[in-house]
Amino acid sequence: MSKKLTLGLFGFGVVGQGLYDIIKTKKLNLEIKRFAIKNPEKKRTLPLDLFTTKADDLLDDPEINTIVELIDDAEAAFEIVSKALKTGKNVVSANKKMIANHLEELVDIQQAYGTSLLYEGAVCGSIPIIRNLEEYYDNELLHSVSGIFNGSSNYILSKIFNEHLDYDTALKHAQNLGFAETDPTLDVGGFDAKFKLAIVASHAYGLYVQPSNILNIGIDKLSDYDVRFAREKKYKIKLVPTAKEIGNERVILYVIPKFVTEKSILYAVENEYNGVVVQAAFADQQFFYGKGAGGHPTGSAVLSDITALRYDYRYEYKKHLAATQLVHSNNHKITVYLRYNDEAVIEKLNFIKVSERFYAREFKYVIGDINLESLIANKELLAADDSFVVEVD
Amino acid sequence: MSKKLTLGLFGFGVVGQGLYDIIKTKKLNLEIKRFAIKNPEKKRTLPLDLFTTKADDLLDDPEINTIVELIDDAEAAFEIVSKALKTGKNVVSANKKMIANHLEELVDIQQAYGTSLLYEGAVCGSIPIIRNLEEYYDNELLHSVSGIFNGSSNYILSKIFNEHLDYDTALKHAQNLGFAETDPTLDVGGFDAKFKLAIVASHAYGLYVQPSNILNIGIDKLSDYDVRFAREKKYKIKLVPTAKEIGNERVILYVIPKFVTEKSILYAVENEYNGVVVQAAFADQQFFYGKGAGGHPTGSAVLSDITALRYDYRYEYKKHLAATQLVHSNNHKITVYLRYNDEAVIEKLNFIKVSERFYAREFKYVIGDINLESLIANKELLAADDSFVVEVD
Repeated sequence: MSKKLTLGLFGFGVVGQGLYDIIKTKKLNLEIKRFAIKNPEKKRTLPLDLFTTKADDLLDDPEINTIVELIDDAEAAFEIVSKALKTGKNVVSANKKMIANHLEELVDIQQAYGTSLLYEGAVCGSIPIIRNLEEYYDNELLHSVSGIFNGSSNYILSKIFNEHLDYDTALKHAQNLGFAETDPTLDVGGFDAKFKLAIVASHAYGLYVQPSNILNIGIDKLSDYDVRFAREKKYKIKLVPTAKEIGNERVILYVIPKFVTEKSILYAVENEYNGVVVQAAFADQQFFYGKGAGGHPTGSAVLSDITALRYDYRYEYKKHLAATQLVHSNNHKITVYLRYNDEAVIEKLNFIKVSERFYAREFKYVIGDINLESLIANKELLAADDSFVVEVD
Repeated sequence: MSKKLTLGLFGFGVVGQGLYDIIKTKKLNLEIKRFAIKNPEKKRTLPLDLFTTKADDLLDDPEINTIVELIDDAEAAFEIVSKALKTGKNVVSANKKMIANHLEELVDIQQAYGTSLLYEGAVCGSIPIIRNLEEYYDNELLHSVSGIFNGSSNYILSKIFNEHLDYDTALKHAQNLGFAETDPTLDVGGFDAKFKLAIVASHAYGLYVQPSNILNIGIDKLSDYDVRFAREKKYKIKLVPTAKEIGNERVILYVIPKFVTEKSILYAVENEYNGVVVQAAFADQQFFYGKGAGGHPTGSAVLSDITALRYDYRYEYKKHLAATQLVHSNNHKITVYLRYNDEAVIEKLNFIKVSERFYAREFKYVIGDINLESLIANKELLAADDSFVVEVD
């Protein structure tokens, strides 16, 4: 039978309001007792006694057995979540940055205090990918996990490729719809996708990898030349995080824009949608698809996590305990298209093999094989040069 | 830590061979001890002492703690599976007919004997839909589950719509590729999809429904007229099983061919692929996609179930225990296109509302609203008339 949950929520935005509405109308054996908010001046749609500005009003309330954390600030979120877990409350969070940066510590706290932290909403909106990696795919059998993890970037790329908007206009559209923040760097710089990839890597392969050790190249340097180049070859460009296992020993992780052909299942993933491709031994591709950006998809995943806590569901992190452990490595060759400005960049980058080179006054590119480590070592150089990098299959 | 499993397999076809190969090469803490087969004369690719024709050589072997059942005969499979569960062995099966017909009894046996039966391979090949319904979607929040559950029918329909083959040629292609049996009735008659739907309904809504109480209309009466009609409207026809919840009280289940427009995510599911659409409150569509027919997709799901048994995973059937229970009902209005020959059929069928009617010497159809109960009551009449029914959205 299910356990009655009494919830305390941090944050009252679209997701919080939506959760409140749905919990009121459905027989879910759940009750929201109180919301902790930052700004007491803001007008609220619910009675004022449901709100407090003091975190401890929720964290110290013995009636509240479950905390739902929905705030932006990753460090404040970590304080709240770790305190809640240490005082015997289970927690649901959708804060990918906080989880990616503190995962190992959060797992230790869960194990030490016997509490459960669920975060399906942190990765790919409503797609239940964490659960499926955790429960369904043995790491020995999992070749790769990749896909479209960031709805904002994908929305921008769709507008550029399907509606011929330029980058800046497309970004503005995304911001107007609430799919991208005022400072869009987290999304278009590939950071958001990287945080999600680090979490995915953990549940896929039993690894803790600090996001700072994972290469992320975003779409923010995309130029009309790159778009024209892709169009001529009938490619689209998608921002694709990739986790793959090599030789049963190493796991490679990176976030790079990618040329995607019509044959790829990601080609048809448009706008704010996310799609995750799982390649497993003996199976062909598995594909999971759903909305990735906006409040509702996240809310749906958060609600699923809450309902699972009624049955004391917890991630077991089995793969972290396995006898033979895979290790993270950046020593891996990939093929890239690199548009650049300064010839010095090419010299520094140390391509293993160059298969194509084009030179005109305003548009120069190289296609060739390069080691991930070299891209990481020269990340600042690439940024300073306004270079754009795209993976070629 | 994972438990070492010693497996006994019933059946040695593509799946059995594939499992053997992969278990040998991967470090999965699994060992196959023996295969039970029907025909001792057949040449085998493995040493003879791995095979026996006596079921009890596996069932009575105390070293074997896990049975994998991969035979065709549903009643023989039920004998094997129930005996295994009663003697303390966990079981993995992919036999949808057996499971759909005996689910309630099998759940009782599992609960009485504390053993676990997993059957992800029985529904939609490698797509982990049973697990996701069981674990991730609360029944209160689940509006509907539908999709393409039968790879053979879908392959035939794809060949007809994309390559302009006629039905008989397309069926032969499917048979040559091993996607359809010599007697294709189970597939093209919608029975296979119905067994899967009954299993899905159980994990989605906590209901036991006998397959004989669910309407299944297949694609075997599809004519060139129907194909032409669909093409003119830019529809494809897909065989779509549907489970949906009405008013938090009733669950409607049926398998009927459906006109699908380009806007539907099922439109692009072609050939032997399966796709499952989950509509949940607060989430938009979730879509799961993967190969549905052939040995490997099934093998992959079977292997995932086996690896899960190392951690004593079991379906909890939580939704069956919930306080408020949904009930199955066929009292539900749907809109259909009905191509018919004999006017008497129309009179008998008792349409609630007719919105379109066409009459020519060789091609007559009606589009209108009808109760599912009326289609069920007149199923034999429709078959005798060579009528074809398609759901209209």
